[in-house]
Amino acid sequence: MGEFDLIARFFKRPVQRAALGVGDDCALLLPRPDTHIAISTDMLVSGRHFFPETDPMRLGHKSLAVNLSDLAACGAQPLAFTLALSLPGVDEPWLAAFAQGLFALADAHGCELIGGDTTAGPLNICITVFGEVPVLAGRSQALLRSGARPGDDLYVSGTLGEARLALDALLGKINLPAEALAAARLRLEQPTPRVALGLALRGVASAALDVSDGMLGDLGHILQSSGVGATVDADAATELIAFSPFYIRAAGQFGIKLSEDQWRTLALSGGDDYELLFTAPAHVREAVAQASRSSQTPVTRIGQIETQQGLRLTNRQGQPLANTYASFDHFA
Amino acid sequence: MGEFDLIARFFKRPVQRAALGVGDDCALLLPRPDTHIAISTDMLVSGRHFFPETDPMRLGHKSLAVNLSDLAACGAQPLAFTLALSLPGVDEPWLAAFAQGLFALADAHGCELIGGDTTAGPLNICITVFGEVPVLAGRSQALLRSGARPGDDLYVSGTLGEARLALDALLGKINLPAEALAAARLRLEQPTPRVALGLALRGVASAALDVSDGMLGDLGHILQSSGVGATVDADAATELIAFSPFYIRAAGQFGIKLSEDQWRTLALSGGDDYELLFTAPAHVREAVAQASRSSQTPVTRIGQIETQQGLRLTNRQGQPLANTYASFDHFA
Repeated sequence: MGEFDLIARFFKRPVQRAALGVGDDCALLLPRPDTHIAISTDMLVSGRHFFPETDPMRLGHKSLAVNLSDLAACGAQPLAFTLALSLPGVDEPWLAAFAQGLFALADAHGCELIGGDTTAGPLNICITVFGEVPVLAGRSQALLRSGARPGDDLYVSGTLGEARLALDALLGKINLPAEALAAARLRLEQPTPRVALGLALRGVASAALDVSDGMLGDLGHILQSSGVGATVDADAATELIAFSPFYIRAAGQFGIKLSEDQWRTLALSGGDDYELLFTAPAHVREAVAQASRSSQTPVTRIGQIETQQGLRLTNRQGQPLANTYASFDHFA
Repeated sequence: MGEFDLIARFFKRPVQRAALGVGDDCALLLPRPDTHIAISTDMLVSGRHFFPETDPMRLGHKSLAVNLSDLAACGAQPLAFTLALSLPGVDEPWLAAFAQGLFALADAHGCELIGGDTTAGPLNICITVFGEVPVLAGRSQALLRSGARPGDDLYVSGTLGEARLALDALLGKINLPAEALAAARLRLEQPTPRVALGLALRGVASAALDVSDGMLGDLGHILQSSGVGATVDADAATELIAFSPFYIRAAGQFGIKLSEDQWRTLALSGGDDYELLFTAPAHVREAVAQASRSSQTPVTRIGQIETQQGLRLTNRQGQPLANTYASFDHFA
């Protein structure tokens, strides 16, 4: 099977909203009037971002999910994406499964594949995603990292640390029973981009980003962009995993025993969570709760934005904790 | 140097036309009204698309050039691009040179870097580029592959085959004197995207694409998309290299001796040319000549679009030639 047959067979589908899709030198999009095009790109490298033997259907899902998560963090409505794929060879069952996982998530978000590139080489998946954000009265409705203000509440969606728990188990660092691993592994390999929550938070949240490298490290980007500091309740964040139904089941049924600090490390710096971390003024707490309900996405208040620069950690009782929870860096 | 320092040091620059550039979850573009956004993505893999030891400044240039070439083929005005980079490690002189070559070409075309991703892994460069094409009275001005009509002339810009000549010399398949190699190598490593010609051909050309995998193979895409056939004067195409000042110098001064068929193979299926291959009705020949002059880009008529399906080759005298000039396929 040649390069063009491969594209035609696995990746060419009828055009939906785009003016021109896969198959010409460029794709063409006609944006709506008074709309920002939100653009993000993520590259996934085999052996770095995923194990080479990862289920290709899940990998197809995750490749798009991490990009949709960036749109979610901006409050953008997904529109389209391009896919560049470097493949060691043509493995038809692998490609069919990859495409199935990819398009299932794309279709769920009305996000169409409009172009791409296919080449031979070490397995590498690079997706660039496009979304729409309305501009109202000259003002973009996009959620940025720079809008956090002293006094704002700090929230996180869903749970933290389960992806890292699965990774540590797969790397043999933690012993996890098979059923517990299967549950945590879904979070690692098939994360849910919080698109509906991001849309519901437009006009409510003051700043947002998605947690990919570890919650505290990613929070640092909001603090730096906004010129503010924060105090985070480490226990509130940690309980998202330690007291989650998953953990209770795991600890009770499977006898997983991790120290308090191990649970904190997973939650605070685990990475690969693809949850939204966002801030909002205290007077819109009911609006945040409404956004959570309407998007059917749990959110938890885990801290406070402050004038004083820097990041402070406390336990549930407000006592200070040392911050030893480093974030992931590809080159550190 | 960590990932974020690397981005800040080499790739973050003040925002120009974008509403939001590098550093948030998404970049934001506000398109002009009645404008198509043209989008293309190309992935360059070390050891596949370039030698690992390629001069990084030229590689930075080429990584963007091959993408701008796709915009040129659509008649799109370059606007912005994203860069995803997988690097084996942080080599500061390499990164500085790569960024210098990249931004020199970007600045020459007013095309700004608005976002990206950086990761550790085998060297891989994935750029997604954005351009603008006006929509006049509901009709896109984009040049597509599907517009060729029987009776149209077939043209190619610049010269063909020099990039492949350099590649064959670097691979040791052809013996090329150092000075001749240096000249051909510039065409391989630092191709010129024909952006000005593409813009000048809007409303003139009936179909266009850029030659990347070999001229005859790429012509096949126009024929297939347009549902037409063509006759190509192989000698007219081959003389672009065989009678070029470069070749005359090379043959005269350096005694390069290739057979007629070797020259034809270079010109007809060499690849990596990044020239525009386009069609236009015979009655707009003067407009094509004017587009060539205004863009200061030579164009040569090398054939004719016909109703009869398929691709026919002739020599200068119109006698049929067998087509043994296969195009490049990453998986063939």
